[in-house]
Amino acid sequence: MSLEREEPTHFGAGPAQLPTHVLQQAALDLINYKDIGLGIGEISHRSKDATQVIEDSKTHLKELLNIPDTHEVFFMQGGGTTGFSSLATNLETAYVGKNGKLGKCGYLVTGSWSQKAYEEAHRLRLPAEIIFDSRKYDSNGKFGSIPNESEWSSNLNGDYAYVYLCENETVHGVEWPNLPECIVSNPNIELVADLSSNILSRHIDISKYGVIMAGAQKNIGLAGLTLYIIKKTILNDIQNANQTKLDELNVPVTPIAFDYPTVVKNNSAYNTIPIFTLHIMDLVFQHLKAKGGIKQQEVENELKQKSIYDALDSYPNFYNLPVDKSVRSKMNVVFTLKDSSLDGKFLEEASKLKLTGLKGHRSVGGFRASIYNALTVESVNKLSKFVKDFAEANSK
Amino acid sequence: MSLEREEPTHFGAGPAQLPTHVLQQAALDLINYKDIGLGIGEISHRSKDATQVIEDSKTHLKELLNIPDTHEVFFMQGGGTTGFSSLATNLETAYVGKNGKLGKCGYLVTGSWSQKAYEEAHRLRLPAEIIFDSRKYDSNGKFGSIPNESEWSSNLNGDYAYVYLCENETVHGVEWPNLPECIVSNPNIELVADLSSNILSRHIDISKYGVIMAGAQKNIGLAGLTLYIIKKTILNDIQNANQTKLDELNVPVTPIAFDYPTVVKNNSAYNTIPIFTLHIMDLVFQHLKAKGGIKQQEVENELKQKSIYDALDSYPNFYNLPVDKSVRSKMNVVFTLKDSSLDGKFLEEASKLKLTGLKGHRSVGGFRASIYNALTVESVNKLSKFVKDFAEANSK
Repeated sequence: MSLEREEPTHFGAGPAQLPTHVLQQAALDLINYKDIGLGIGEISHRSKDATQVIEDSKTHLKELLNIPDTHEVFFMQGGGTTGFSSLATNLETAYVGKNGKLGKCGYLVTGSWSQKAYEEAHRLRLPAEIIFDSRKYDSNGKFGSIPNESEWSSNLNGDYAYVYLCENETVHGVEWPNLPECIVSNPNIELVADLSSNILSRHIDISKYGVIMAGAQKNIGLAGLTLYIIKKTILNDIQNANQTKLDELNVPVTPIAFDYPTVVKNNSAYNTIPIFTLHIMDLVFQHLKAKGGIKQQEVENELKQKSIYDALDSYPNFYNLPVDKSVRSKMNVVFTLKDSSLDGKFLEEASKLKLTGLKGHRSVGGFRASIYNALTVESVNKLSKFVKDFAEANSK
Repeated sequence: MSLEREEPTHFGAGPAQLPTHVLQQAALDLINYKDIGLGIGEISHRSKDATQVIEDSKTHLKELLNIPDTHEVFFMQGGGTTGFSSLATNLETAYVGKNGKLGKCGYLVTGSWSQKAYEEAHRLRLPAEIIFDSRKYDSNGKFGSIPNESEWSSNLNGDYAYVYLCENETVHGVEWPNLPECIVSNPNIELVADLSSNILSRHIDISKYGVIMAGAQKNIGLAGLTLYIIKKTILNDIQNANQTKLDELNVPVTPIAFDYPTVVKNNSAYNTIPIFTLHIMDLVFQHLKAKGGIKQQEVENELKQKSIYDALDSYPNFYNLPVDKSVRSKMNVVFTLKDSSLDGKFLEEASKLKLTGLKGHRSVGGFRASIYNALTVESVNKLSKFVKDFAEANSK
């Protein structure tokens, strides 16, 4: 029975490729963890070993992201979609706890994930509001750009329980290059951000966020687990919310398994935590620390995105890049062929070189190369070379 | 790198021991699934291979439980606690869809899990009602018995959106020997049952259930996934529910990731399904089919429970079994030592024989031997022998 494999070059958008040696260690630990005679998935979530995995994961993440004492880390089952509802109801509860009245749920819509997050808040009967939808500011009426702050900051008015954004939109390949100043400089607004597809890919300043949510299945592990980083004052506000007031204002009750203070008080083990999945996440954290932390990863990610975008940009008559240069995602590189009759050939020839997972999202078409942390510079260079070779061979 | 291990004899209540060869196959598939060059956890949840895992799991479960066409199978992230809220809101929505008015949420409370399920429905502002709490009928005022139907069936009155029970209470070791006739024979009541800790342990008649929920981490896999078997008419009723009516009656909105019709329509992949965890579940299904299905498993489970209960019953002056014989769990064997000063010695000597996970739940104390499907007859016989030897050696 072999645990070896050739290094994959899979550019799928997620669940995504993970470091091979992380999976090898996880495979061994699935059978016999630290020689206890049982796998890490077969022990109580309240056992010493499981608790240590939770503690280690938190410690390593705090080190990697330099998380200040003002913020708390916890883990919950689910992914982005689960987060949409729990963020909305927990944050509204916190706002009522602090202010005794409802606040608006503001959304900055730059792609289909932030759009879905808005829809869920609205569906839950919360006072959800789109602060801007980038399509309305885009010359093509599509997702692919982010308007300047000066164009939309005046839309902010009234009281917000929070303002939500998705830092990297995987479907459309749009990434916020910086956080909007009008939000982060406003002490009355909590920024809630979905970092599912770019967490740990670059330096971030945790102090600017009210809550960060990040599903595991892109940069940090298997599907089934989401990490949260939350300002401790928000947890307090949720706990201090007056039940009579919440009932009176008809704030939707968060299901107990997703009530943030309950999860934190129970060290992420109120609902049985998928400990094997968390262990893989921690192995990824350890892997990242060992290679030099975010700083080193960011250097590599910069090389990777430059390599592939440069290759595509070199053939402007052959490739089309629909996203504005200023907001191009460094994780999901979206492009199409000017001559779409070559689409099949492109995928086929890529596949022969074992460059897989390149098909674009069904709602966008074309191609998407997801170059998450686990993709090496060499792997991306291989793709860049193919991109150039294919253009050379097929340009008219 | 070795994937071998000595066969464990771990009696923990869950997450619990799994068949070694299932874990070995899963370990290999984590690295390179069907020689595609990637692990099963690294591919899109909408890919051909992932979709096949979902289909296979459904097919195998349907075969094992002989699930009729009247019922649908789906999978969601979470465990029992997540189920408490989603069952309550989905079933209430279905009732409103069918009847245009609210129905009561009835609970048969026989242990701490059914108690928690009731508390969650109440917390969600639903019209929750305890039909009976077995402690009120128990001579010791504790969980450990189930009153005769004749004692509580008259408590049923009015309209119920559903009636809920937990077939096997893991903490207190209480299992329903049969479903209550007054519920299953009433065509106006949907039975909702938590089978998290006894699913696939014995024959059941699916046609009697409105919904079955079962978390994976006892008999069928790793933590992080729950299976649902639901009557198709309930799915229709949820979809047919009038939104204005739901708003008017203030039925809590189910978060979209847990909206049953949405999950079913998306073949359990609306929220990214943890495909590695599902693959392990399917390997357990295949393992069970190969060994002879539920019929063979039930034979083994009968031998196991008889072996351990007989051993404990042989020393009535030494061991105390708090649960009524008629409702003793065949999965979680709860007992205490009459002389609790021997507790430490009992655990220590058991541990020397590699009999682990025997400590009782913190809320009950004493001991609990969980003898789920993966525990072999031989393993349980080993424990039974120890139980007898210890009593012999330490009786005064």
